[in-house]
Amino acid sequence: MDAAEFRKRGKEMVDYVADYLEKIDKRQVFPDVEPGYLRPLIPDCAPQDPESFEDVFKDIEKIIMPGVTHWHSPYFFAYFPAASSFPALLADMLCGGIGCVGFSWAASPACTELETVMLDWLGKMINLPEEFLAGKDGQGGGVIQGSASEATLISLLAARTKTIRRVQSENPELTEAEIMGRLVAYASDQAHSSVERAALIGGVKIKNVSSDDKFTVCGSALKKVLDEDKASGLIPFFFCATLGTTPCCSFDRLLELGPICNKENIWMHIDAAYAGSAFICPEFRHLLNGVEFADSFNFNPHKWLLVNFDCSAMWVKKRSDLIGAFKLEPLYLQHHHQERFRSLKLWFVLRMYGVTGLQEHIRKHVRLSHQFEHLVLQDERFEICAEVVLGLVCFRLKGSNELNKALLKSINEAKKIHLVPCYLREKFVLRFAVCSRTVESTHVKFAWQHISQLATDLLQTWEHDDHQQ
Amino acid sequence: MDAAEFRKRGKEMVDYVADYLEKIDKRQVFPDVEPGYLRPLIPDCAPQDPESFEDVFKDIEKIIMPGVTHWHSPYFFAYFPAASSFPALLADMLCGGIGCVGFSWAASPACTELETVMLDWLGKMINLPEEFLAGKDGQGGGVIQGSASEATLISLLAARTKTIRRVQSENPELTEAEIMGRLVAYASDQAHSSVERAALIGGVKIKNVSSDDKFTVCGSALKKVLDEDKASGLIPFFFCATLGTTPCCSFDRLLELGPICNKENIWMHIDAAYAGSAFICPEFRHLLNGVEFADSFNFNPHKWLLVNFDCSAMWVKKRSDLIGAFKLEPLYLQHHHQERFRSLKLWFVLRMYGVTGLQEHIRKHVRLSHQFEHLVLQDERFEICAEVVLGLVCFRLKGSNELNKALLKSINEAKKIHLVPCYLREKFVLRFAVCSRTVESTHVKFAWQHISQLATDLLQTWEHDDHQQ
Ligand SMILES: Cc1ncc(COP(=O)(O)O)c(C=O)c1O
Ligand SMILES: Cc1ncc(COP(=O)(O)O)c(C=O)c1O
Repeated sequence: MDAAEFRKRGKEMVDYVADYLEKIDKRQVFPDVEPGYLRPLIPDCAPQDPESFEDVFKDIEKIIMPGVTHWHSPYFFAYFPAASSFPALLADMLCGGIGCVGFSWAASPACTELETVMLDWLGKMINLPEEFLAGKDGQGGGVIQGSASEATLISLLAARTKTIRRVQSENPELTEAEIMGRLVAYASDQAHSSVERAALIGGVKIKNVSSDDKFTVCGSALKKVLDEDKASGLIPFFFCATLGTTPCCSFDRLLELGPICNKENIWMHIDAAYAGSAFICPEFRHLLNGVEFADSFNFNPHKWLLVNFDCSAMWVKKRSDLIGAFKLEPLYLQHHHQERFRSLKLWFVLRMYGVTGLQEHIRKHVRLSHQFEHLVLQDERFEICAEVVLGLVCFRLKGSNELNKALLKSINEAKKIHLVPCYLREKFVLRFAVCSRTVESTHVKFAWQHISQLATDLLQTWEHDDHQQ
Repeated sequence: MDAAEFRKRGKEMVDYVADYLEKIDKRQVFPDVEPGYLRPLIPDCAPQDPESFEDVFKDIEKIIMPGVTHWHSPYFFAYFPAASSFPALLADMLCGGIGCVGFSWAASPACTELETVMLDWLGKMINLPEEFLAGKDGQGGGVIQGSASEATLISLLAARTKTIRRVQSENPELTEAEIMGRLVAYASDQAHSSVERAALIGGVKIKNVSSDDKFTVCGSALKKVLDEDKASGLIPFFFCATLGTTPCCSFDRLLELGPICNKENIWMHIDAAYAGSAFICPEFRHLLNGVEFADSFNFNPHKWLLVNFDCSAMWVKKRSDLIGAFKLEPLYLQHHHQERFRSLKLWFVLRMYGVTGLQEHIRKHVRLSHQFEHLVLQDERFEICAEVVLGLVCFRLKGSNELNKALLKSINEAKKIHLVPCYLREKFVLRFAVCSRTVESTHVKFAWQHISQLATDLLQTWEHDDHQQ
């Protein structure tokens, strides 16, 4: 394929993508296929000779689409949103075309520099303390990571190195392995599994801090476990606070936790993977109060800020501290492998939406989740299971876990909308996450009527059934 | 921006990218800007109100392009290639449009399944032993990672867990921390820095194995360090063999190293980041002989197989072993965070080039590197510093490191071509890597004439200069 054919096929692909997104509400949100559906549909091995674009193109509808879960359908209410917008798609085309690799300044000056400046823009949008910004020659700064998991891992590793150095300088008789064996990291029992994984990768212990009845970690809970662990000879070194937990979007109390971490020499990382985007709205910014105590902070514009995957924004407060503290910092903090020109997406989206356009997007989602919450509250068969703060509603039928599992099953088998569940303590709960860029009040109303009808059907049979308990 | 505007702007962007790539040879390969050039050119913060596409679009040439190192210019001979092709760009547009997240089967069946099948296709193309393939329900299988660094890290972590389990079952009195403190990983002194980093992240020791005068690790070198380390109580657990080292594209001797690793219970990972793509040509496949002894193998189609970043292919031989051996395997091996539909690129490229088209691409690059090698050899002022096997030529002026640094400086300051250097032992060496998809014999000839002329100029002044030593 030469440039001339690319011009033709590229334009066809633009139309295909535009058609797909414009009419996505006509597609069944969740596919009908069974595991293993694809292998029999395609050859065993790659063709020897080139196939035409037409042949490949027609297989998209024949082979791929039947197996796609349509994340951008307005009937998709599962997980958390995956951001998508037209400006980001345009930027990604440009990024692919340039195809540069940004692992050092010389390898691609524009790529390296735009990233730093864009993270300053974004940091200012959420009113991050000055210390986190790079500015002309600031102490802190931001970097784009591939995922929140990666950001958590990097901050845990930085904390590990820093702590080992400190403890070793105070206790020269201890070996690195001995110190490693006593290090312990902490996170809420509601934290994302990536925090546990980061600790496993880093070879250090991790403990849960109990969240309260609002699924929130407060200062006293952290204090309690720290005191116990220090008494038994362990060395607390890292705490990951979550703003917007995955199950129910609860918020740890930074203003209580931060001072404890600072006092105890514990690195505080804040994981705001989903919720962070909301902090561009002044009415939600208070949820970030206490970030001034943190060492590192992360959220995913690729979740809720209309920037297509991947774009996870991470800031550290004191780069200079790090650079002084351990020689490995540049390896950890900078991209240690090939990276694309990801900041272009941020640049396109921030400029073509403007701050106000992005705020509107966030506010629409929050409004729709409250709309759904109100519909649930009007039906006394149902209950709301956690405070609705942003775009997520956790709800369930008053009744057993089995009943709620049956409800979810009937919802997902009908395939008119798509939801996923979670557990809150022992309770099986349905999560209604406002996801699509194009979702409107009518879709939310439809979803509720549909759920409500399925609940009615279910309860009728359920009551005459021995499932009931 | 709505779908209608996206249709218009998307097509403009397709033309922009086509123009860029078609006329990339007219652009200066390396930019003129100085560090910090970009910040003064753009506002301090994101705009409140939306800007038009036109405004953003015209800044591409004004602000971005002046700071771009043109990786796809036929005058770019630095690092290793970054793959790029039109079919891959088309696939990426589709991938962005679908915008699904593939972290589990249900989250996107087509994405999960196409990936497995594509890695079987690719595995067959390089004639990987059956054990590495997933097949219908095989023991092994492949997965797409973001980078070779990531693949190395994952294999090191898997090896670490497996070894700790084994040692602990044999020596129940040892704690995990004690075992960790004795684990040691190995790689060639020519290995990529990502291997050392993987060990640092995993909190285990790493040692270099000395390469020979061909920059190759042979069995006896590994044996020697293993014997010493075992005698002093360490536990060797991981060896990363390199096929195609970063400095000079040398190859470790798998057929000697593999049996040693197998006998000593050492996980052998093979990093063939760049060279792996060449194994689709039967005449280069022998370089992979011995892969049958490995536990995991990785190469980057995003380097040399015309699949745009990111697409790093990793296979493990015995998934079943892993699943039995440690509960964490699914966390490590599967994507533990959001991933795009990266296999689409592989599908488009393998089909639209066909195996023969991809072989042609590899062979052209190898032919061009030998052309350059011959030009160097005809000039007795120069020497070749390592065997030319694939698309990389390491060369230098016979003379001091200072002389060669001066030559590189004059090459890169002229900005007609772009090269980077490396050290081979104490020698400062210039690396000529055939990179661009569109590079032809004329570009190679031009590059050589240019280098040769600069060398003449340099040698004239150098001889009358006190630099000379
Ligand atoms: C609170 C939280 N942290 C981390 C993650 C993982 O994000 P990523 O996929 O970017 O690693 C999620 C994903 O939903 C999340 O909700
Ligand atoms: C031999 C080798 N291994 C690993 C890497 C790192 O690759 P990645 O950027 O995919 O992590 C390179 C990069 O050039 C390499 O040459």
